Amino acid sequence: MRIDIITCLPRLLDSYFAHSILQRAQQAGHAEVVVHDLRDYTLDKHRRVDDYMFGGGAGMVMQIEPIARCIRALQAERTYDEVIYMTPDGQRLNQQTVNTFSLKQNLIILCGHYKGVDERIRERFITREVSIGDFVLSGGELPAAVLSDAIIRLIPGVLNDETSALTDSFQDDLLAPPVYTRPAEWEGMKVPDILLSGHEAKIDEWRYEQALARTRARRPDLLGE
Amino acid sequence: MRIDIITCLPRLLDSYFAHSILQRAQQAGHAEVVVHDLRDYTLDKHRRVDDYMFGGGAGMVMQIEPIARCIRALQAERTYDEVIYMTPDGQRLNQQTVNTFSLKQNLIILCGHYKGVDERIRERFITREVSIGDFVLSGGELPAAVLSDAIIRLIPGVLNDETSALTDSFQDDLLAPPVYTRPAEWEGMKVPDILLSGHEAKIDEWRYEQALARTRARRPDLLGE
Repeated sequence: MRIDIITCLPRLLDSYFAHSILQRAQQAGHAEVVVHDLRDYTLDKHRRVDDYMFGGGAGMVMQIEPIARCIRALQAERTYDEVIYMTPDGQRLNQQTVNTFSLKQNLIILCGHYKGVDERIRERFITREVSIGDFVLSGGELPAAVLSDAIIRLIPGVLNDETSALTDSFQDDLLAPPVYTRPAEWEGMKVPDILLSGHEAKIDEWRYEQALARTRARRPDLLGE
Repeated sequence: MRIDIITCLPRLLDSYFAHSILQRAQQAGHAEVVVHDLRDYTLDKHRRVDDYMFGGGAGMVMQIEPIARCIRALQAERTYDEVIYMTPDGQRLNQQTVNTFSLKQNLIILCGHYKGVDERIRERFITREVSIGDFVLSGGELPAAVLSDAIIRLIPGVLNDETSALTDSFQDDLLAPPVYTRPAEWEGMKVPDILLSGHEAKIDEWRYEQALARTRARRPDLLGE
């Protein structure tokens, strides 16, 4: 899989892609993430990517030309399954969408910044608008990293133990059960006996019950209740 | 405001805090973000922060001791308003929660990694469990950066134009209206005439209608409809 991220602040993402599982995934050839600096696609000498809003108002708008030039340059190289725009008014990301994206070959992710991109970019180029949640950030760079991380960790071979991702929250519409490690007792707080029992079937049953109880208490909406 | 982030992978966050508005906010003295490496709080020579799960199963669990030591060292220095754990089974982050956090003085954010932290850490130290959405990431580092960014940009003086944050999506339960910048016509696509009219009141009205229409189409839940 290849992910191309388009941003006006490429430096923001450097260390994340250089240190996380994303780096390991890239070294092992499972995924390639290429970050593009929008300023490389400007024609004016000030390398400007934003401008004032028509109609007045606070905040800058990302201009059409550099974005259009960058997307077209990428699309001339290969076919993209989706051109995704990270924006708080997009479709809310969930694990099902992540699963779907993880089966694609080539994705472009455009990071909004300032007040967002000129609406005509959305109309002309964007195939999916994605939000990571109902809150506002200074830009789409962190959301692009969030989306890339969520997708890439699902690619077979990226996680050390593939069964690990299958027991995550949301993969079965249940939150994960509580987990414990050594010591068995810490400042008077003990690990539940069942987990020390060695009865695998009973442990599985306990975990399922805990996951169900936690989901019912915290997120009954996931159970459709 | 001061935010202390506790993580076993501090390098992941380096460039984000070095380049974004968070850096400007720190330089101007509006906010201080300190990232703590959990390995500095281990006592064993291998600086281990994780261990196998009691009861068996795939994935590692973050140990109690280094986390407890780090939180207690911080709490010995100052009083914290909240000790927040980033976890997919936490309370979903929204702009109201961000607004509330932005009024606090000192926050600790603990990043989960691997299969998460030992449950006893949650019971003993954590005052708020926060999720950025219904998807699973390789760790809580990006969510901690997301939360920090969302909070810090609301601190007065951080954004260049303070009215900018007030017209964001969600601050008034409406998605933001479309925005446009030059050129007024691009490849046959024109900016709506009203935005070029100079009639401020009519432009405000148009933006409100657009915001309402977009919210109704995309997120009727925000309108309670």
